[in-house]
Amino acid sequence: MNHIIETQQFNREWLENEFFPEVIKMKQRPKENSLNSLAGKEMISFFYEPSTRTRLSFELAMKRLGGQVVFSTENAKEFSSVAKGEIIEDTVRVLCGYGPDVIVLRTDQAGMAQRAADFSTVPIINAGDGDHQHPTQALTDIYTIYSERGRVDDTVIAMCGDLSRGRTVRSLAYLISKFSGIKIYFISPEAARMRDDIKEHLKENKIPFEEVADLREIASGVDVIYDTRIQEERGALLMKYGKTAFWTVNQEVMKMMKEDAIVMHPLPRLEEISPEVDDDARAAYFRQATNGLYVRMALLNMILG
Amino acid sequence: MNHIIETQQFNREWLENEFFPEVIKMKQRPKENSLNSLAGKEMISFFYEPSTRTRLSFELAMKRLGGQVVFSTENAKEFSSVAKGEIIEDTVRVLCGYGPDVIVLRTDQAGMAQRAADFSTVPIINAGDGDHQHPTQALTDIYTIYSERGRVDDTVIAMCGDLSRGRTVRSLAYLISKFSGIKIYFISPEAARMRDDIKEHLKENKIPFEEVADLREIASGVDVIYDTRIQEERGALLMKYGKTAFWTVNQEVMKMMKEDAIVMHPLPRLEEISPEVDDDARAAYFRQATNGLYVRMALLNMILG
Amino acid sequence: MNHIIETQQFNREWLENEFFPEVIKMKQRPKENSLNSLAGKEMISFFYEPSTRTRLSFELAMKRLGGQVVFSTENAKEFSSVAKGEIIEDTVRVLCGYGPDVIVLRTDQAGMAQRAADFSTVPIINAGDGDHQHPTQALTDIYTIYSERGRVDDTVIAMCGDLSRGRTVRSLAYLISKFSGIKIYFISPEAARMRDDIKEHLKENKIPFEEVADLREIASGVDVIYDTRIQEERGALLMKYGKTAFWTVNQEVMKMMKEDAIVMHPLPRLEEISPEVDDDARAAYFRQATNGLYVRMALLNMILG
Repeated sequence: MNHIIETQQFNREWLENEFFPEVIKMKQRPKENSLNSLAGKEMISFFYEPSTRTRLSFELAMKRLGGQVVFSTENAKEFSSVAKGEIIEDTVRVLCGYGPDVIVLRTDQAGMAQRAADFSTVPIINAGDGDHQHPTQALTDIYTIYSERGRVDDTVIAMCGDLSRGRTVRSLAYLISKFSGIKIYFISPEAARMRDDIKEHLKENKIPFEEVADLREIASGVDVIYDTRIQEERGALLMKYGKTAFWTVNQEVMKMMKEDAIVMHPLPRLEEISPEVDDDARAAYFRQATNGLYVRMALLNMILG
Repeated sequence: MNHIIETQQFNREWLENEFFPEVIKMKQRPKENSLNSLAGKEMISFFYEPSTRTRLSFELAMKRLGGQVVFSTENAKEFSSVAKGEIIEDTVRVLCGYGPDVIVLRTDQAGMAQRAADFSTVPIINAGDGDHQHPTQALTDIYTIYSERGRVDDTVIAMCGDLSRGRTVRSLAYLISKFSGIKIYFISPEAARMRDDIKEHLKENKIPFEEVADLREIASGVDVIYDTRIQEERGALLMKYGKTAFWTVNQEVMKMMKEDAIVMHPLPRLEEISPEVDDDARAAYFRQATNGLYVRMALLNMILG
Repeated sequence: MNHIIETQQFNREWLENEFFPEVIKMKQRPKENSLNSLAGKEMISFFYEPSTRTRLSFELAMKRLGGQVVFSTENAKEFSSVAKGEIIEDTVRVLCGYGPDVIVLRTDQAGMAQRAADFSTVPIINAGDGDHQHPTQALTDIYTIYSERGRVDDTVIAMCGDLSRGRTVRSLAYLISKFSGIKIYFISPEAARMRDDIKEHLKENKIPFEEVADLREIASGVDVIYDTRIQEERGALLMKYGKTAFWTVNQEVMKMMKEDAIVMHPLPRLEEISPEVDDDARAAYFRQATNGLYVRMALLNMILG
């Protein structure tokens, strides 16, 4: 059984020796020359709340490997038996009874992916559980750093935006702390600072980190800017504490950045990255989105192939 | 043409000689050894209102038999031309014009499945029409009794919960009345009693039934407890008339029950079945849910194969 | 690259020499004898707002040609990254990064299909962009006139209903103006008159048109009545200006009409066409709906085949 629940479950050896090579294999695989390695395999795509990009890349990954998405629901919290008060343990037991080969599960509360896995007889892939983790996004992010830079070691990264609720930065912090020579800058509004659990984890793993007031202070020294969106519902609150400007990536910031540095973002982006940056070769966020497909193909192939 | 509209259309001979054997065939069929008996066949899965479990099991059934689900919509009442005021007769004529092989239809008003069938040139399967009927659930239920007990005859069954609006108990009452040696107990709040049309039907078919105040009065003598959920929106009203306790299945009730009795529930379940019951071998509700898949495979194979 | 954005992009030669013959080929093609001309091709079906009929006919068209619908979302405006404020340009770049072969796009604002095409590396098919255009519906309509009448030239057509916001009549007006011997009558409430841009286009193309108060004035002389629905939210406003009666198609109107005239409607229809008309051979609206499938098969086959 291979559940994918949280990034802590992966170690550096697996990432470098198994995961990265498998993603590269998927990326090089001609779309037309389908290996159909997952022919006959069945995925249930079960989303408590909508997430177009994640759902799309999982379902497309399954289909491109020759597998079937036997069922897809994008708003189960509002529309399904979940809405009638069913607990995740019951939902998972029913889904497993149908005999699928894998369940991709997006839930709205931290820890629900693990609760599902505890009752599941088939692999569960956590496609995001509330503000807890989003491991396949983090695997996409760590692969993107590897792919763009040639290695993950010796990366100075600035994580910007909503760090307290952003599960992508949380998951990525866990993953990147497995490498050496890492230095992290956190840039966020006061009200959205990185939480203590991640800071403790970094201390334990001897990863230096620093909270910085303005991206421009450190832009010239970073290898990666990982920007994130302030979620609309939090926007009003955060604006009390400061303007978005201090972590906006625009031409001014790009001029400061090193020639081989990159800008990442899990998307969708709002004002935190100016469109003027899009044509810069260092703007890696659309390549990062595409990597999400190959990462999910790799994971499905490793679990089911 | 083989529409599936309501349980009254099936007789005992069909159930025993054709339907049960076909379900068993589906259950025994190895998933990997796909017969693809429905290759080239097309299903439209058209749900006016969401019903994850029913939609999932129909779509998975179709795909596992090698057929295609060419279109699926889960909330047509809110989202489709239905929302713009289109009558079911027009919707069905348009769907039929596209030439699918079968239409699975969940509607929100009693009688709409029959109205659809009257205008359809392809088989219509009623996946629930308002509070009227849910025949494939009832077929799942009657098969589960047969499968768990080895026969349907001589079954003493307690139907509990929201009996007035629960279409699953209504449909099952019609089906089970075709067998002999049946005795039914009804346990429900005053405000949710089984309606007169079903009682009349049972009298005509000489099926003894009795309304009982508390499940514990008769638990020791029943072969099947069929529990159902009180729908949330009715909960407040019903609570005026009494606590849910008198039809809750818990350890106390399980201790009273016979060793070969079973507990069924169409799911999702709320407090009416305690989680402590789940590990009891007599808890048949998750097996019942799984049977729903095989029943729908059997029906599709009989109609389209 | 073959985007389908608006009807102005098609000329008469293409319609008559390529498009109509391809639709006929699709119509005559036995469903069972699948050519699988689009095997291995992938469609993303991306709808900002629901449109059951359009989405269904596109997805079914793709599947019946052997292609795959790798992802479908029916309410992206409410549910996806679009809801989080993502601009269409970003959405399209992400979708293209996944390498599909075609994107079918329904948006909610005029001009968004063109904006998407400007950034897309794969063909974009406009499945309706706000109140701007709905070119595949217009192609269905012009094919239906051709198919029912044997030619498009020399058609006198009455366009009725909500002409100001109805994108189907707008798109059809552009298309039919490419033919000769055309005469158009517009019948609508004062508040929903055909807009000036279309009228200017008709003048430039020397297509005579006339605004008429009541369908019954001209019913005996027309070859085609193209009726449309008054959208519910506009209904109250429009009712101030007059009853729907003056463009209702009923037995009275049918008696006035020529024997070889036809009644069309993009559906869903409300009171503007009485059900009593349905059995008249001149009622072409359900055949028109079916044509929508063959038209989309033809377009997909021409773009991807």
